[in-house]
Amino acid sequence: MSEKRYLLTPGPTPVPPEVLAAISQPVVHHRSPDFRPVYERTLARLGEVFRTRSDVLLFGSAGSGAMEAAVANLCSAGERVLVVSAGQFGERWRAIASAYRAEVETLEYAWGEIPAADDVAGRLQELGGAKAVLLTHSETSTGVVCDLQAIAAAAGEQGALTVVDAVSSLGAVPLETDAWGLDVVVSGSQKALMTPPGLAMLSASERAWAARGESPRFYFDWERTRKAQATLDAPFTPPVSLVAGLDVALGMLLDAGLEAVFDRHVRLGRACREGAKAMGLELFSPDDDRSAVVTAIRAPDGIDATELVARLRDRFGITIANGHAALKGRIFRIGHIGYFDVFDITTALAAVEIVLADLGAEIERGVAVTRALEAFEERARV
Amino acid sequence: MSEKRYLLTPGPTPVPPEVLAAISQPVVHHRSPDFRPVYERTLARLGEVFRTRSDVLLFGSAGSGAMEAAVANLCSAGERVLVVSAGQFGERWRAIASAYRAEVETLEYAWGEIPAADDVAGRLQELGGAKAVLLTHSETSTGVVCDLQAIAAAAGEQGALTVVDAVSSLGAVPLETDAWGLDVVVSGSQKALMTPPGLAMLSASERAWAARGESPRFYFDWERTRKAQATLDAPFTPPVSLVAGLDVALGMLLDAGLEAVFDRHVRLGRACREGAKAMGLELFSPDDDRSAVVTAIRAPDGIDATELVARLRDRFGITIANGHAALKGRIFRIGHIGYFDVFDITTALAAVEIVLADLGAEIERGVAVTRALEAFEERARV
Repeated sequence: MSEKRYLLTPGPTPVPPEVLAAISQPVVHHRSPDFRPVYERTLARLGEVFRTRSDVLLFGSAGSGAMEAAVANLCSAGERVLVVSAGQFGERWRAIASAYRAEVETLEYAWGEIPAADDVAGRLQELGGAKAVLLTHSETSTGVVCDLQAIAAAAGEQGALTVVDAVSSLGAVPLETDAWGLDVVVSGSQKALMTPPGLAMLSASERAWAARGESPRFYFDWERTRKAQATLDAPFTPPVSLVAGLDVALGMLLDAGLEAVFDRHVRLGRACREGAKAMGLELFSPDDDRSAVVTAIRAPDGIDATELVARLRDRFGITIANGHAALKGRIFRIGHIGYFDVFDITTALAAVEIVLADLGAEIERGVAVTRALEAFEERARV
Repeated sequence: MSEKRYLLTPGPTPVPPEVLAAISQPVVHHRSPDFRPVYERTLARLGEVFRTRSDVLLFGSAGSGAMEAAVANLCSAGERVLVVSAGQFGERWRAIASAYRAEVETLEYAWGEIPAADDVAGRLQELGGAKAVLLTHSETSTGVVCDLQAIAAAAGEQGALTVVDAVSSLGAVPLETDAWGLDVVVSGSQKALMTPPGLAMLSASERAWAARGESPRFYFDWERTRKAQATLDAPFTPPVSLVAGLDVALGMLLDAGLEAVFDRHVRLGRACREGAKAMGLELFSPDDDRSAVVTAIRAPDGIDATELVARLRDRFGITIANGHAALKGRIFRIGHIGYFDVFDITTALAAVEIVLADLGAEIERGVAVTRALEAFEERARV
């Protein structure tokens, strides 16, 4: 295997050296003046990135832990929720809500389809309402990013809370927690927030706080965490090293400006799609600017994406993602969330091109990199 | 405040530079060959440290998350458990079991008392049994380490499962999961395992697996994690950076040999106690070799431990721990778990001595450091 590594998956994502440097500092005590200012700044910065005036609760866990926090705090057994499922992470909502014995209704799409506000409104009407709609902003398994603002409006009109998995979208594409009336937003450190995995976060609207249910919970209990954070304490020893890294990463994001960051993601997505198409590949994820998080590409006829992924890894030290579940071997996914620039895209495309050629795929050689660079420039708005 | 920092608390604890170097490596994908061997080795090493042939389940959370995992997987609502409480972390068991609506009975001691096997046996008889006894091996808030082997034997005789919080004890003092019949053992990365906070682990006996209950759970579900670990997968994106650090730290522990590590902790505890006594201070934690994790010392008459802790921090950059709850201001605690040697103890004692003298305490000057060094040598058994 090549010595040098290229992490080009949709999560975990590459982490800037400044963040790695921060997490490798000697451990400090979480109740000391060495940590409290870091904690305070991190919580404030999270509020800015979430675009919310509500508290953002910080948990030491994977993003799925914060998804469970949403369900465990909101849903009592037997309460009806509507899960919008169009991929792997929609299915995760279903699994969590089922584990908590909610009455789980679904609005199900084929993997790769884009959930629509009208469908959500229709399904809620059909059901006579639901306590909450659990949905995925960016479905990492397919590359689809839905129109969250429209769906939240539809759910709100039907009296349902909007509960959003924004693990791979927050900090990559626009998300307005307060302005769009998102009742619960959950995210994680290891995607666009450019920090190693191990931290998850959740914001909840006043409406969501008022709608809390009766399920048992402790580590992920909202109130325990909110009370502790209010005095810059933490309910449990937090992953201080990762918080120090997140603080630095959020500072980088906010210094760049969220609008500029979103624009870069749009251009990265465009570059990836245009490069792939120039090579003659067929996109699986939508060819639209909203899907700026991960690009999913169909393996050419006769080519197994699993083989492509393995060869990229063994020959070049490049990690991209295979398809999940039924899509395994049929698609491959190039991430461009967080600490990515256009040369990560051209690296991915150049390597995919040579390996596909080796595997005997009929592709157009020598055009993808140039087309990607052009497409990246075209989209410059800032 | 002084520039140089000394973290001398019972957790989080100082982390060796080798471990900090490991966690600051570029992030790798958790399903890639860059991570799987690290994961496999870490899980195997955890088994060696736990002294168990059962799977050790690894969670991305604080130690309290693994405590919740114990309760959520074992206890259905209404099932009786016996919580042994003699401090802050006994109270945590009570809080978690109450959150899960177990029928919580308690065996309560004054903070600083040592739970005894006879008391546990007697209380279980009085109750007519309980599904599980939830107890704390090393009560970090008081410095007490109980005779876990005897208590587990007593619980086992009464047909109760033994569920142990070994967060601050595992890797510091002897703990034999299988040989002592410990049904569930939970621990965390940030104490004797010499890794930053953010990872927790749990082992469960066959008896415990067979006794699982009906409470809702997802992130902390044992089966979900066991199944994933069996194929070196992880159920959720793990904190890969922290796992890389834990791998290195566990290697250091096992290379040194657990017996040698336990012996060093005994000698560190002895050094700390003898030094404190030589200064004329009164111990709060027991003056026995088992209490080798943290030494709790009473503040001299007229001295506020809160003031002592603040001055150590501001003048010398030294962090030690105050008392918890009702003991706040009345005791102070010097940790010696994990990456500690005798000069950490002499640093703590020398600084405590000078600050207490400043505060007007009547203490013996100039003897503590020498006495600590002598006591550390006396105990050399290896």
